[in-house]
Amino acid sequence: MAAGVACGVRKSGSRDLGLLYSERPCATAAVFTRNAFKGAPLAVTKEAVEAGNVRAIVVNSGNANAATGEQGLSDAKEMQALAASALGIGAGEVAVASTGVIGVYLPMDRISEGIAQAAGELGGDGTSFADAILTTDTRTKEVAVRVEIGGRTITVSGTAKGSGMIHPNMGTMLAFMTTDASVKPDCLQETLGRATERSFNRVTVDGDTSPSDMALLMANGAAGNEPLHLDHPDYPAFAEAVETVARGLAKEIARDGEGATRLVEVVVEGAEDEQSAAALAKSVVGSSLVKAAVFGEDANWGRVLVAMGYAGIPFDPDGVELYFGPVKVFSGGEPVLHEEAEANAALASGEVVIAVRMGEGDASATAWGCDLTYEYVEINGSYRT
Amino acid sequence: MAAGVACGVRKSGSRDLGLLYSERPCATAAVFTRNAFKGAPLAVTKEAVEAGNVRAIVVNSGNANAATGEQGLSDAKEMQALAASALGIGAGEVAVASTGVIGVYLPMDRISEGIAQAAGELGGDGTSFADAILTTDTRTKEVAVRVEIGGRTITVSGTAKGSGMIHPNMGTMLAFMTTDASVKPDCLQETLGRATERSFNRVTVDGDTSPSDMALLMANGAAGNEPLHLDHPDYPAFAEAVETVARGLAKEIARDGEGATRLVEVVVEGAEDEQSAAALAKSVVGSSLVKAAVFGEDANWGRVLVAMGYAGIPFDPDGVELYFGPVKVFSGGEPVLHEEAEANAALASGEVVIAVRMGEGDASATAWGCDLTYEYVEINGSYRT
Repeated sequence: MAAGVACGVRKSGSRDLGLLYSERPCATAAVFTRNAFKGAPLAVTKEAVEAGNVRAIVVNSGNANAATGEQGLSDAKEMQALAASALGIGAGEVAVASTGVIGVYLPMDRISEGIAQAAGELGGDGTSFADAILTTDTRTKEVAVRVEIGGRTITVSGTAKGSGMIHPNMGTMLAFMTTDASVKPDCLQETLGRATERSFNRVTVDGDTSPSDMALLMANGAAGNEPLHLDHPDYPAFAEAVETVARGLAKEIARDGEGATRLVEVVVEGAEDEQSAAALAKSVVGSSLVKAAVFGEDANWGRVLVAMGYAGIPFDPDGVELYFGPVKVFSGGEPVLHEEAEANAALASGEVVIAVRMGEGDASATAWGCDLTYEYVEINGSYRT
Repeated sequence: MAAGVACGVRKSGSRDLGLLYSERPCATAAVFTRNAFKGAPLAVTKEAVEAGNVRAIVVNSGNANAATGEQGLSDAKEMQALAASALGIGAGEVAVASTGVIGVYLPMDRISEGIAQAAGELGGDGTSFADAILTTDTRTKEVAVRVEIGGRTITVSGTAKGSGMIHPNMGTMLAFMTTDASVKPDCLQETLGRATERSFNRVTVDGDTSPSDMALLMANGAAGNEPLHLDHPDYPAFAEAVETVARGLAKEIARDGEGATRLVEVVVEGAEDEQSAAALAKSVVGSSLVKAAVFGEDANWGRVLVAMGYAGIPFDPDGVELYFGPVKVFSGGEPVLHEEAEANAALASGEVVIAVRMGEGDASATAWGCDLTYEYVEINGSYRT
């Protein structure tokens, strides 16, 4: 069950407090930002997830409750306690998340009113929750898939927010995924970790990693399947379902990057291993010069080579083939003659694909990002004012 | 002696070919980009510098001669041979550099005419050479200092270009420094390496590292001092002179960053070692969100903490003090009450200083960058068109 309400944390009057709740007990897995500065809610949520009983999430947008010291930690705990009390469950069963401006104390009176109101509105389709977690996002992000597991149809669904301060090791990004599958806790954690590596950790909007990021996956077993473990014959189908939802949300985050007009997908094939492929793909998709070139529909492919070159991954430049959409522009260490208009046209699409084929091995990886626009500068030059 | 001429490589008709020449033999030191893709001239120049006889530099702007394969290498060698012939010296005595668009073959007929013309115009004040190496730069960059060495007055002077594709491990950056001091070759190389680390390697405009970068330091001994070595009592004064010139050029590159309206200087003090301090300072000055906040004169200091947090350097967040100009905004893990207008005003200056004091040790470092503006996006969305 979910709800999202407006309680006045965001100046705009938009929804800014969400509640997600499972009546049944859940297994819950979590991954957190690697930023050395971590928002107060992360400590509270980490403790709760580790204790193993999380089945509710309370989240606010408009204020990240980060760089807020002792007061921030106390506010996050109060938020947890208020939600638990409104739901009639233990404080340790509630995860807490906050996203928004850094370095400002939470307005706890408004948060408190919001929690009470949201608890009274639980139910519905989850879209108001998906809406309440947004900040500079322009639209809600929701993905769901159904698969057959042990003879039962199970659903994996998720919602996420994220638009700026997005970088491979998680950005100002929150993702909440739920499933009615029954999954053993250690299996759930491994599934989420792997899916995160191939989705949220492969998105960059601006190279910044925020102190607030987390992805949670709750599994309450309502589908009645035999509990999944890593060696279960249907486990691969479940893992693929989770990865599909996570990847879908990650792409939506990239597509809705601050000021973005285009989704950029960078595919690296023929790398020595998946980690190298991912590092190269992320370096290209994160390059300001590549992003600006996509915005300008200018197939300045040298910038892609340059970004690969500083990724810190050794490779043979002469073994690289580079494509803008279907147009081959570089091969064997030399430029490939092509119609420049065709290469430029490949950048004019809503979904731009830049593909790199290398001769180092068999591994591949994909990373997602967006173009760099005037609007990005405008949004971030005046975020708080 | 120097010269700079227009030979038609740049579409604008600006000067685009420069020649620098010492009648006396020189000791010459060099550092090169760490990008895995390297422009053809770098291989040619590296070989010449290692052979130990370089006393001339030929450089063109408008075309980087990078990602140009065998043809590119052959063109770079021809450029070297043409310059040597025009100067009446050996090919191995000439260093070659190119900067500009990537992936296009050099127009060798124009380069050839340019070299002949420049050789005929050698002399003058060096400003036409400083002008000929520019690309998207808006102005020439020249710095010179004089110091007393072993009873003789020696001069260290330099010129550089760099505006976009600038990042700590050298960007689309060329720097040519000369001195009339007599310096032993190994001492010269170590001096240039250390000065580069503390100057050009601490500048970022857009996080990209180009395949064309190099810094050269030529010393021809015309001042008549006893040759300098690392243990010479006057060596520190010489090293400081070189570092002053390099730092001055580095700051000019940051100030003239593509689209920049402000120089941003980030000072980190109290770090465990200089390398950590430099990594933290570079992470802050390279953050798109910090850069956009400076452009918007919005003292959103949380973004500085975030950028420190993902620098990969462990530190205690509670031991951090953060200043925007003279205004303390964060200390002991908590926001510091301050007049927001004063903090914003600190960002409205032409030279913005962001200072971080940590409690980890005694090391410090400074990094330089600029703000992120609409004009940056405009320049890089339409660089070639």
